[in-house]
Amino acid sequence: MTQPIDWTISASDGKARAGTLTTRRSVIETPVFMPVGTQGSVKGIRFEWLESELDARIILGNTYHLFLRPGVEVIRSMGGLHKFTTWDRSFLTDSGGFQVFSLTDLRKLTEDGVEFRSHLDGSKHFLSPEVSMKIQAALGSDIVMVFDECPPGDAGFDATRSSLQMTARWAQRSKKRFDELAVAERKVVANAPDLSGKAALFGIVQGAGHLDLRKESLEKTIEIGFDGYAIGGLSVGEEKSVMYEVLDFVAPQMPSDAPRYLMGVGTPEDLIEAINCGVDMFDCVLPTRNGRTGSAFTSQGKLNIRNAKFASDSRPLDAACSCSVCRRYSLGYLRHLYQAGEMTASILISHHNLAFFMDTMKKAREAIKSLTFQSFRKEFLAGLSENDASGV
Amino acid sequence: MTQPIDWTISASDGKARAGTLTTRRSVIETPVFMPVGTQGSVKGIRFEWLESELDARIILGNTYHLFLRPGVEVIRSMGGLHKFTTWDRSFLTDSGGFQVFSLTDLRKLTEDGVEFRSHLDGSKHFLSPEVSMKIQAALGSDIVMVFDECPPGDAGFDATRSSLQMTARWAQRSKKRFDELAVAERKVVANAPDLSGKAALFGIVQGAGHLDLRKESLEKTIEIGFDGYAIGGLSVGEEKSVMYEVLDFVAPQMPSDAPRYLMGVGTPEDLIEAINCGVDMFDCVLPTRNGRTGSAFTSQGKLNIRNAKFASDSRPLDAACSCSVCRRYSLGYLRHLYQAGEMTASILISHHNLAFFMDTMKKAREAIKSLTFQSFRKEFLAGLSENDASGV
Repeated sequence: MTQPIDWTISASDGKARAGTLTTRRSVIETPVFMPVGTQGSVKGIRFEWLESELDARIILGNTYHLFLRPGVEVIRSMGGLHKFTTWDRSFLTDSGGFQVFSLTDLRKLTEDGVEFRSHLDGSKHFLSPEVSMKIQAALGSDIVMVFDECPPGDAGFDATRSSLQMTARWAQRSKKRFDELAVAERKVVANAPDLSGKAALFGIVQGAGHLDLRKESLEKTIEIGFDGYAIGGLSVGEEKSVMYEVLDFVAPQMPSDAPRYLMGVGTPEDLIEAINCGVDMFDCVLPTRNGRTGSAFTSQGKLNIRNAKFASDSRPLDAACSCSVCRRYSLGYLRHLYQAGEMTASILISHHNLAFFMDTMKKAREAIKSLTFQSFRKEFLAGLSENDASGV
Repeated sequence: MTQPIDWTISASDGKARAGTLTTRRSVIETPVFMPVGTQGSVKGIRFEWLESELDARIILGNTYHLFLRPGVEVIRSMGGLHKFTTWDRSFLTDSGGFQVFSLTDLRKLTEDGVEFRSHLDGSKHFLSPEVSMKIQAALGSDIVMVFDECPPGDAGFDATRSSLQMTARWAQRSKKRFDELAVAERKVVANAPDLSGKAALFGIVQGAGHLDLRKESLEKTIEIGFDGYAIGGLSVGEEKSVMYEVLDFVAPQMPSDAPRYLMGVGTPEDLIEAINCGVDMFDCVLPTRNGRTGSAFTSQGKLNIRNAKFASDSRPLDAACSCSVCRRYSLGYLRHLYQAGEMTASILISHHNLAFFMDTMKKAREAIKSLTFQSFRKEFLAGLSENDASGV
C-alpha cells in the first residue's frame, strides 16, 4: 500500500455513503463507530470481546491521557501503543488538544502552542503541533489527528474566527512535522514485520455554530490537504439543532474522496443524522460511560437499569438485540448486579451498549447499500422514542 | 440419580485424595476450588469465562447477601438462583450464619436463631436453621450448608463448647427442615426439566483451635449424618500453625466416603496443605479481592502490580501460567491499567488469579493420581517463596 489509507465508496443513498477504509492495520467498513480506549483500554471491555463478537476494527486512544500516563517513553520502550496494549487492529489517536483546552484554568495559550498543568499531579507540560505529531508517531497511531484549538462553543464570532485561523496554521505545521517524522515512525512500527504502510493524517474543521466560519475553516483545511477530514467542536454544549445545522451544511462540502469523521459524537440519533449528512466515522464515550451508570441504549430508546420495575423482569435489555448480553442476561439480573454494586453490571451493560452502536452502524451500512437508508432512518428514529413514550 | 450427590475417590496419595463429586447439575473433579459469587456474580468475571477457559464446575453464593438483596421473592419469581443468574452448573450456598455472626453489634442470639439488622439499611431480620433451609431451598442451591454458629476465634473453651453444641442442635434442626422442604424445592427446580436430583446437605464442624472440641463437634455432626462435611471457623484470625494443626487433626477423621470442605480458605499454600490433610473442596474471595487491589498470585508467590519496576516490563504476570491474561498481557500494560484506574485491571488480574487457583487444583489432582503429590507439594511451596526472596 503506497497511500496511508485506501478509501473506496461502495454505495451512496442520498448524501449517506457506505465505504471501506483500509489502514495499514485493518479493513474498516463505514459508517463506523470507534469505541473509545482513552487510556489504552476500552473501559470494562476486554479486547477479546472487541475482536470477536463486537468486531471493532479501529478504536480511539487519547494522546493527552497516554502522554501523561504511562508516558511516551514507557510506550515507546514497549514497542508502541499496539504492542503495549496488544490491540493489533487500528488506533486513531486524537491530538491532545481537546483535553488540554478543557483545562481552562490550567493552560497558557500562544501561537507556538499551549502550556498546561496535568490534571493528575499539576506538573507542567507543553503541547504544540510539533509535539503532538511526535507523540502520536511514538505511539504508532494509524490515524493521526492534527493539533487544533477547540474554542468554547459560546465563543463569539471574532474569537472563533481567530481560533480557526490559528487552527489552520497549526494544521499546516502538523502536516509538515508529520511528514518529517514518517521515517522515524517507521522505526517504531518496525516491530510489526507485516506492517509496511504509513500512518494517515486527518485535518479538523472548526468554526463552532457559525456556518460561514465553518466554510472558511473547511476551505483552509482542504487547501492544506489531508488523508481524511474531521468535524471538531460539536457536541460541546450547543443546541442539537445547531449541531444538525452545521452537519447538514459542512459534511456534504467535505471532499467525497476522503473519509469524514465527526469527533466525539454522539447518541444513536446523532449518528444516524450525521450519516444522513454524509459522515463516515464516529467516536464517543457514551456507550461505556452510560454503561457504568446503568444506562442502556436500546432500539426503543434509553433505559435506566435502576428502575424498580425491572426487578423481576426476565426480558433482555433489548429484545431486538442479539448481543451476548441480550441473549443471556435478564433486566432483573442486570438490575440486581447494578444495585449490588457489582462490577459485572458495568461490564455487561457497557458491552451491550457497544454492541448496539456497532450493530446500528452495520444496519446503516446495509440500508445504504440497499438504497433504503431513508426508511431505515425513519424507522430507527421512531423506535428510539418508544421508551420515552412508555415512561421508562 | 437417587442420591443427592455421587462421590467417588479415584486416587489417594498419603492422606490426599482425588475424586469426583457429581451433583444434580455438574461433575466436579476434586480437589476443587469454588470461585465466590457472593451476590450471584463472581466479581469482575463474566460467566462466559468461568464456563470456558476457567471451567469452574461449581461456584458459591452467599445466602445472607442474596437474602437481603435482591431478596428471596425476586429470585423465586425468576425461577431460582440458576435461572436468575444464568449459571447452570452447581451452586453451593452457605447458610448465612458466618455473615450474621460477623455483625457483632447488630445481632441478638437465642437458641431459636439470630435476630440481626441488615448492613445495608438497618432493617430487622431473623435467621434460624429453619429459615436458612427455606431460603436455600428457594434459591435452588445444589449444595446446602447447615445453619451454624461461628463463635469468635478467640472465644474461650467453655464458650466454644457451648457454641458447638448449639451448632449440633441447629444441624439437627437444619436436616429435619431440609428433608421436609425437599418436595417444595422440587417445584422451584421444576423449571429445569433435565433436573431430577435432589440438593445435598453438608454439616459443619466447629470447635475453633481446641482439638478436643473439634473432635466432639465432628462426632456430633457425623452422628446426625450428612452428604458432605465441612470445616468451619478457620482462617478467622488464628495463627496459621493453629489452622494447620486443626486440619491435620480433623480432616483425616472426617468420613472418607463423603467430600470434605474447608470453608473460606485460603491462600495457595493453605490449599495445598489442606489437600495434604485430605480436604477436597475450597472457596475463598482471595483471587478476586486481591485482583481488585492489584495483587496477583503466581507460581513464584504474590506480586504487587503497583510496583514501579514493572512499568516497562513486557513479561506476563506468571511465565508458568497459560491463562488468557498471561498469554497476552504484559506486566507493564497491567500496571498502567491499574495506575490509571481502569476497570480492566481488576478484570484481568482477577481472571489470572482465578486461573492460577483452578490450575493449582488441577496440578494437585494430577499429582495425587500419579502418586507424586509430596514432590509436587514441596516444589510448589518452594516456588511460592521465590518472589519474597527476590523482594518483589
